[in-house]
Amino acid sequence: MSNNPFFNAELLQNLRTQQPLVLNITNIVVSNYVANGLLAIGASPIMSNAIEEMEELATICGGVSINIGTLTTPQIDAMLAAGKTANVTHTPVLLDPVGVGATKFRQSTTKKLLEEIEFTAIRGNIGELAFLAEVDWNAKGVDAGNGEGNTLETANLIAKTVAKKYNTIAIVSGEVDVISDGKTTVQIANGTPLFPQITGSGCLHGAVCSAFLTLANLTDQKDILTTCVTACVSYAIAGQIIAKADMRSGGFTTALIDGLSKITVEDVNKLANITLIND
Amino acid sequence: MSNNPFFNAELLQNLRTQQPLVLNITNIVVSNYVANGLLAIGASPIMSNAIEEMEELATICGGVSINIGTLTTPQIDAMLAAGKTANVTHTPVLLDPVGVGATKFRQSTTKKLLEEIEFTAIRGNIGELAFLAEVDWNAKGVDAGNGEGNTLETANLIAKTVAKKYNTIAIVSGEVDVISDGKTTVQIANGTPLFPQITGSGCLHGAVCSAFLTLANLTDQKDILTTCVTACVSYAIAGQIIAKADMRSGGFTTALIDGLSKITVEDVNKLANITLIND
Amino acid sequence: MSNNPFFNAELLQNLRTQQPLVLNITNIVVSNYVANGLLAIGASPIMSNAIEEMEELATICGGVSINIGTLTTPQIDAMLAAGKTANVTHTPVLLDPVGVGATKFRQSTTKKLLEEIEFTAIRGNIGELAFLAEVDWNAKGVDAGNGEGNTLETANLIAKTVAKKYNTIAIVSGEVDVISDGKTTVQIANGTPLFPQITGSGCLHGAVCSAFLTLANLTDQKDILTTCVTACVSYAIAGQIIAKADMRSGGFTTALIDGLSKITVEDVNKLANITLIND
Repeated sequence: MSNNPFFNAELLQNLRTQQPLVLNITNIVVSNYVANGLLAIGASPIMSNAIEEMEELATICGGVSINIGTLTTPQIDAMLAAGKTANVTHTPVLLDPVGVGATKFRQSTTKKLLEEIEFTAIRGNIGELAFLAEVDWNAKGVDAGNGEGNTLETANLIAKTVAKKYNTIAIVSGEVDVISDGKTTVQIANGTPLFPQITGSGCLHGAVCSAFLTLANLTDQKDILTTCVTACVSYAIAGQIIAKADMRSGGFTTALIDGLSKITVEDVNKLANITLIND
Repeated sequence: MSNNPFFNAELLQNLRTQQPLVLNITNIVVSNYVANGLLAIGASPIMSNAIEEMEELATICGGVSINIGTLTTPQIDAMLAAGKTANVTHTPVLLDPVGVGATKFRQSTTKKLLEEIEFTAIRGNIGELAFLAEVDWNAKGVDAGNGEGNTLETANLIAKTVAKKYNTIAIVSGEVDVISDGKTTVQIANGTPLFPQITGSGCLHGAVCSAFLTLANLTDQKDILTTCVTACVSYAIAGQIIAKADMRSGGFTTALIDGLSKITVEDVNKLANITLIND
Repeated sequence: MSNNPFFNAELLQNLRTQQPLVLNITNIVVSNYVANGLLAIGASPIMSNAIEEMEELATICGGVSINIGTLTTPQIDAMLAAGKTANVTHTPVLLDPVGVGATKFRQSTTKKLLEEIEFTAIRGNIGELAFLAEVDWNAKGVDAGNGEGNTLETANLIAKTVAKKYNTIAIVSGEVDVISDGKTTVQIANGTPLFPQITGSGCLHGAVCSAFLTLANLTDQKDILTTCVTACVSYAIAGQIIAKADMRSGGFTTALIDGLSKITVEDVNKLANITLIND
């Protein structure tokens, strides 16, 4: 069991009790997978891209997840409406800037979203958050890609930079997840190498963070960080407990949903592998 | 074997023999799952949202399914064109008003669809059909939610009310499915608790009803009801025969498709658990 | 092991080493499945429909796949931009004309795409390529349908006709795949009857061909044909090695992704069943 002060496995049980409604404005590739993953862990997903209903949905839901994976121009207005409404109603809102560095369209849209919405958290792979942190990195389409030097140290720097720059919690998904609020940085060494082998494992990671964030006290920075860390630990361990030596990506795609359904507070407490890095 | 006069398991075999083309104007979350489910039970799905081809597709297909799960404004025109064409060509058309109560956009669109199209059947969860019946119910996003009093009695009332109000067959999916033509109401106690744990199980339920409806004589109300009851029984039993005690939502998502492929007329006759409620 | 001069199993290893970025402008039904399939065989997929980023994405990727399965008007401009850019940058571009014969919208769009883009390859089922070849065939929606006479001979004729007419490699998916450059025609008798039972198995076939085509020397017609043949053999064998006697479509959907991940150069060399038909 982790004694980390930024970790509280009981939140998993709270999530299942509250079954919060989570609004997802997301891409066509992962809509089904994210919905099934959110249902499995205990949340109630609603997926929409329609500007006509964004204010209402952002008002009734407990959390909003904005993902630019297959961005279209009509989606941008929906994202802005949902995010601004969430800011007004003090609803947590997470950004998943999929492949942000790959095109000017993704870059300019992300810039606009970051200017007009206060994001509670930003989740991406190291390539995506490196772009936001303006750290040199060789991203590859929507994949993480690779950079020079020690990846974990670079991820720490990137997470901290993004958190400070955008006054948010930065979540860098990877072999080791790195979460930072700009002062405290937390590393999570859970998961399985199968995660990056399936499409949508990052997007679902972001959505699970959004689901947990519905439980956070948004006026308490430590509580937000704790919620994000616990979300990341729970998600990584859901994959870890279900992965098998001979498993391939097809089987893992299905198994991860089962893992999110099966995972218990005890699993999370027992397996959490968290390293705390203070300033 | 059921002696219910509104049930005919042989329709399953007819469906497999005819392999009817079913046009689905549906949401981005379940497109893949619905297509695979329809293929598995023996139909030939085509998915489209393009107004440009709606008249042609609605003319060549044997049945139309309209689902508002991730509604967009361009989709509405496509839905209207497909539904109106189906009415002219005497092709069955089913409405799945996903999350209709959640937003004004879904409400006004559903109202318009119901005004301009004669639906052969309307399928939804109890929260969605309660909204159409103007019965008090506490729906939750696109999930069924909960209400006061005896759920089954309320579902009977809702099904009957929707059937009468819209001159249609109303299908309320739930632990017990309730189907009504306004006079005769049929309850089906088949299925598995795994159904509501996966996204798209309701949408696929509607699509399977659309596939069976291609077999119905639309001038014979009893035949339409029989077709819907048999579709619901077959779908519920496809899940029932494949569910296992330790199965979770990931495994069930895959298994349900297998169940739809495996299910036989004998399974349906043997396991059907139908209660008939006359006026 | 095949001694066919138009076959080189080592390309599978090259694909895994290079992990090429493949841009997919595709339909909402198969986006997830195609992305997972491409990841499994070793490519790096990016899915987009946005005209705003098409030129950039077509420039950075190694190959482009254009699929009209759920065509919309905004997609057409994106497809044209991607294809034209690919032609300028000498990037391979494949067309998958899903259900082309079913509607005028698909017909006129396909005509326009074929007029404005030089396709390296065109992949479809026999119904779709029969339409392009102007050969009589009774297609059914997006399914292959059936025609008169010997199907394999008709497929040969269709493949050859499409290849000549559009100066491309024509790939007819079926129980036996037929690939032709207009002069040389190759038949591949691998695979499993489970392929047509799942949605997207054809679309993924096309996407896998696009991934392999990133390895081809586009100035060498023999090399392009060899790449396509090897892609088709690898894809068919990925299904063949994973199929089991009692497998149904749900299980096969998952298993095929595992097969694409597991398949080796040795499997491909050992199991390839290729027949060469010269003019």
